[in-house]
Amino acid sequence: MLSPSSNSTKKAFSRVALVGKFQADGIVEHLQDLAKLVSGLGCEVFIEAATASHFKLANYPTKTADDFAGTIDLVVVLGGDGTMLGIGRQLAGSNVPLVGINMGRLGYMTDIPIQSVQSILPKIIAGEYEADTRTLLDAVVMRDGKEINRALALNDVVVNRSGISGMVELAVHVNGSFMYNQRSDGLIVSTPTGSTAYALSAGGPILHPHVAGILLVPIAPHSLSNRPIVLPQDSVTVIEVVNGLEVIVNFDMQSQTELQAGDKIEVRQSDKTIALLHPNNHSDYKTLREKLHWNEYPSTF
Amino acid sequence: MLSPSSNSTKKAFSRVALVGKFQADGIVEHLQDLAKLVSGLGCEVFIEAATASHFKLANYPTKTADDFAGTIDLVVVLGGDGTMLGIGRQLAGSNVPLVGINMGRLGYMTDIPIQSVQSILPKIIAGEYEADTRTLLDAVVMRDGKEINRALALNDVVVNRSGISGMVELAVHVNGSFMYNQRSDGLIVSTPTGSTAYALSAGGPILHPHVAGILLVPIAPHSLSNRPIVLPQDSVTVIEVVNGLEVIVNFDMQSQTELQAGDKIEVRQSDKTIALLHPNNHSDYKTLREKLHWNEYPSTF
Amino acid sequence: MLSPSSNSTKKAFSRVALVGKFQADGIVEHLQDLAKLVSGLGCEVFIEAATASHFKLANYPTKTADDFAGTIDLVVVLGGDGTMLGIGRQLAGSNVPLVGINMGRLGYMTDIPIQSVQSILPKIIAGEYEADTRTLLDAVVMRDGKEINRALALNDVVVNRSGISGMVELAVHVNGSFMYNQRSDGLIVSTPTGSTAYALSAGGPILHPHVAGILLVPIAPHSLSNRPIVLPQDSVTVIEVVNGLEVIVNFDMQSQTELQAGDKIEVRQSDKTIALLHPNNHSDYKTLREKLHWNEYPSTF
Amino acid sequence: MLSPSSNSTKKAFSRVALVGKFQADGIVEHLQDLAKLVSGLGCEVFIEAATASHFKLANYPTKTADDFAGTIDLVVVLGGDGTMLGIGRQLAGSNVPLVGINMGRLGYMTDIPIQSVQSILPKIIAGEYEADTRTLLDAVVMRDGKEINRALALNDVVVNRSGISGMVELAVHVNGSFMYNQRSDGLIVSTPTGSTAYALSAGGPILHPHVAGILLVPIAPHSLSNRPIVLPQDSVTVIEVVNGLEVIVNFDMQSQTELQAGDKIEVRQSDKTIALLHPNNHSDYKTLREKLHWNEYPSTF
Repeated sequence: MLSPSSNSTKKAFSRVALVGKFQADGIVEHLQDLAKLVSGLGCEVFIEAATASHFKLANYPTKTADDFAGTIDLVVVLGGDGTMLGIGRQLAGSNVPLVGINMGRLGYMTDIPIQSVQSILPKIIAGEYEADTRTLLDAVVMRDGKEINRALALNDVVVNRSGISGMVELAVHVNGSFMYNQRSDGLIVSTPTGSTAYALSAGGPILHPHVAGILLVPIAPHSLSNRPIVLPQDSVTVIEVVNGLEVIVNFDMQSQTELQAGDKIEVRQSDKTIALLHPNNHSDYKTLREKLHWNEYPSTF
Repeated sequence: MLSPSSNSTKKAFSRVALVGKFQADGIVEHLQDLAKLVSGLGCEVFIEAATASHFKLANYPTKTADDFAGTIDLVVVLGGDGTMLGIGRQLAGSNVPLVGINMGRLGYMTDIPIQSVQSILPKIIAGEYEADTRTLLDAVVMRDGKEINRALALNDVVVNRSGISGMVELAVHVNGSFMYNQRSDGLIVSTPTGSTAYALSAGGPILHPHVAGILLVPIAPHSLSNRPIVLPQDSVTVIEVVNGLEVIVNFDMQSQTELQAGDKIEVRQSDKTIALLHPNNHSDYKTLREKLHWNEYPSTF
Repeated sequence: MLSPSSNSTKKAFSRVALVGKFQADGIVEHLQDLAKLVSGLGCEVFIEAATASHFKLANYPTKTADDFAGTIDLVVVLGGDGTMLGIGRQLAGSNVPLVGINMGRLGYMTDIPIQSVQSILPKIIAGEYEADTRTLLDAVVMRDGKEINRALALNDVVVNRSGISGMVELAVHVNGSFMYNQRSDGLIVSTPTGSTAYALSAGGPILHPHVAGILLVPIAPHSLSNRPIVLPQDSVTVIEVVNGLEVIVNFDMQSQTELQAGDKIEVRQSDKTIALLHPNNHSDYKTLREKLHWNEYPSTF
Repeated sequence: MLSPSSNSTKKAFSRVALVGKFQADGIVEHLQDLAKLVSGLGCEVFIEAATASHFKLANYPTKTADDFAGTIDLVVVLGGDGTMLGIGRQLAGSNVPLVGINMGRLGYMTDIPIQSVQSILPKIIAGEYEADTRTLLDAVVMRDGKEINRALALNDVVVNRSGISGMVELAVHVNGSFMYNQRSDGLIVSTPTGSTAYALSAGGPILHPHVAGILLVPIAPHSLSNRPIVLPQDSVTVIEVVNGLEVIVNFDMQSQTELQAGDKIEVRQSDKTIALLHPNNHSDYKTLREKLHWNEYPSTF
């Protein structure tokens, strides 16, 4: 039975965990304010264990991200897209949604400015939000027919040459069909979420987060017609290292495996997803417009 | 005279219409050979009326493309992607599939070389094929709140400046959400099919024909961060002409409307589709590899 | 009343003409302030005739731009790069240098903000400046072996298709040597000055204003390897219209000629130049950095 | 004293050295034929020492590349652009010109096909040729104010991240003026010769070999407006490593130095050059057209 006071407020989420970026200035105060706000809304507040340990926060119970599934209803992330990326990968498939709060600089996923958190977060917790489901990539690294590594990526799986060799040669198959041999600095396999990250720098297009597709972007390809290509979401891409020294495969630029010639990386869309929550009337186009300075015309003529 | 047995051959399609490209050399002979081949398979052969009239072909019954729906089971197109584009738009939603035969130069849609037609076409007519459904765009041109034109596009809807004005300024909304004001030479809204046409020249990515998405590619945008963007297939894009002289909207570069400031073009995925038939084991990646000279490395170093 | 001493101030320039942008708000007041400032430095002040007429400025003598050569020592332009472009072309070869003052928005050529004009302009007039010589293009349009038009361009000579035709086909020769047949939206021949204008939007590189070269940038070329190319400054480029309807050649997007198939445009570096004057310690890299938002990283990852 | 017979033939070059690519099939036979041809023209033939040793060629005198200056009049290189690059760097400033012969695949610098060598080489040796002077870059690597390495590059000086770190941050100054801080995969400083090598893959423009300029091409820059830029040939570019793990600087991708944060690479045009000799009527545009498949239109529409 619900208590009359704060409990009478409609709550979509009862158990809320807070995650903070380690390197950000002033984050402890913001985390404390956030905890107080969420607690005042009648929610049970937990601090993610690594965040609590790093900032020596002892006034709330802690919980490791691995234990969120089934015990936490909502994760509030304070930081940037990188922080969101790390925790997002861990929560894939857990059914625990995330809210991203930025410290002043708009992020693609951390779209709520810290200044607006007092007005926006209560609404989200009350159930007024737009859910935004993001896909992940599931990558298996094979050597001599055996799996030597497996990882999820929310942004991208990147195969790239090292600094010491001039290029890497990759053979790419999609759904068993040979696509091309590519000499380049490497190849990015990206989710729509990752399309605004490294893939964009390498010349790729932007994919709206909800496009059902997987993006391949060659990095500095020798063949000038090796353009970025968007594949259907059920495509299985196999990248084989044909040639190259100290070739590496990165997952979200946060973990990596060193490769040998003959190694294959099999990339497909994961059956796990994560959900981001945004305030109502959220617009991805507004975020893009602000982050990419659209509507500014440097080349006046 | 056909033997009874040949009639007993399994036939997926009984009534076949032939369409030919007008400007191609030697096409009359190829059309006659093709008609004989198809007829020999026990099919009823029709020549598309405009083709018959242009080439003065009188030995087979004719039928206009408008009458194909319900009376024709399969259309065989002899020519290039441009010919395919024209007839494809006319057959959208008709449930009549198309087979594309090229005259020596591989097309994205006309993937069967004339040299192989004797071995490949009988199999397709016997039902051994891979069907490939293509989406179209449905574009409505609005002036002062009224529809002044409406057209389908299999490749693209292109809003572009004329030669006499330096640029066009467009305001773009997606699903009612403002995306950007863009100063440029124009904007391409493309299907996956169109991604290898004009959109590719303007710097867009390749979309596999089955990606569920719509591609926007700005043409020479003043803002350097106005990158190509892929939208979910249920997106409605509204392009408003803010500024520009003699601005024009083109549909598949085959029909067009002259625009005024204030005009809006509303583009969405059509609920009509067309189906292309390919030989079994067809690979879109093989077509891309051959047409784009992938695996050739001009910049050796 | 000016004291004798102020007249004895070192003056690099005695006769100064002022030019103003027509469409700019508040420009009359700025022109009046500017005239007063320059007059107070002991210079003779003239208002460019069209500017005076447009703004009904009657308190200073006027002079048409055509009469500047030999009668004016310095031209001060108040406006944007477009205004500078127009007057710059007229003064090519006249040996009259220009100073560009912007109304708040930094220009590539109009680099002095109106707010700083009181401190900067006196120094320039006193001879403390950096001269910056800009090259122009000289374009001759030939039809049936006869010259039908000839024009200078400070930014670019652009051959482009109209809105009604899908493309233009151009045959390009450099110094009599065949370079390529190009199917595209058009071709930009640009000075280093023009490299930050339309050529940049079309995917071209930036050329420092003092690079001894001419830039060719194809606009949406069908061939994916038709990259921008920089030619030595003594190159003569001949562009022939092979195919295309209502093809147009533009000079600085300010004047134009309609072309027919067979027409040739011969473009070479003009033997005329213009000189811009900048404050000492001017840095083109600072201008580029500010205009292009360098050092901003939208794609955080 | 020269014999009457050989004197009757006009000879521009008397002492000719031959260099061969190590990994090429059938090169020994071609080198023997070449030696015989050149010898038959009355020239003294030498085999470059490493080539002779690798292929065990003992029937001609040998000479190391270091000893060519003053003792050899012409070097004939049999192989590809990579072979040319290696020997070219060694001969910089030696005043010994090079002729490049390819083994069937056209190179940018090795422009004479082995099939045509019997007809072309005698003319070149007789003095019928076009000389083509190429510039080099001179790069000094500084650590704590001290030079730790110095190298020439005929193609490019490349600072790039390793495979293990997501990016490198570089601060770039030109002629003492700050240009930008760049986060990217790296930065290419290229000669016009190098513009068709790695720089082209990274999105750079083509520079005609005789353009007086130095090309900077960012590799996958985070800032979308960090475009390739062409600097005047007298520019001094200083690249400082601000951030990044295992950053490396490469010279022509043939030698390299590992860098630390704070290291600076100072790049300027070398005062040394090399001269390539081509048959009369050589056209760089023809080479570009053939190597880049210009005039082929993959994106037909």
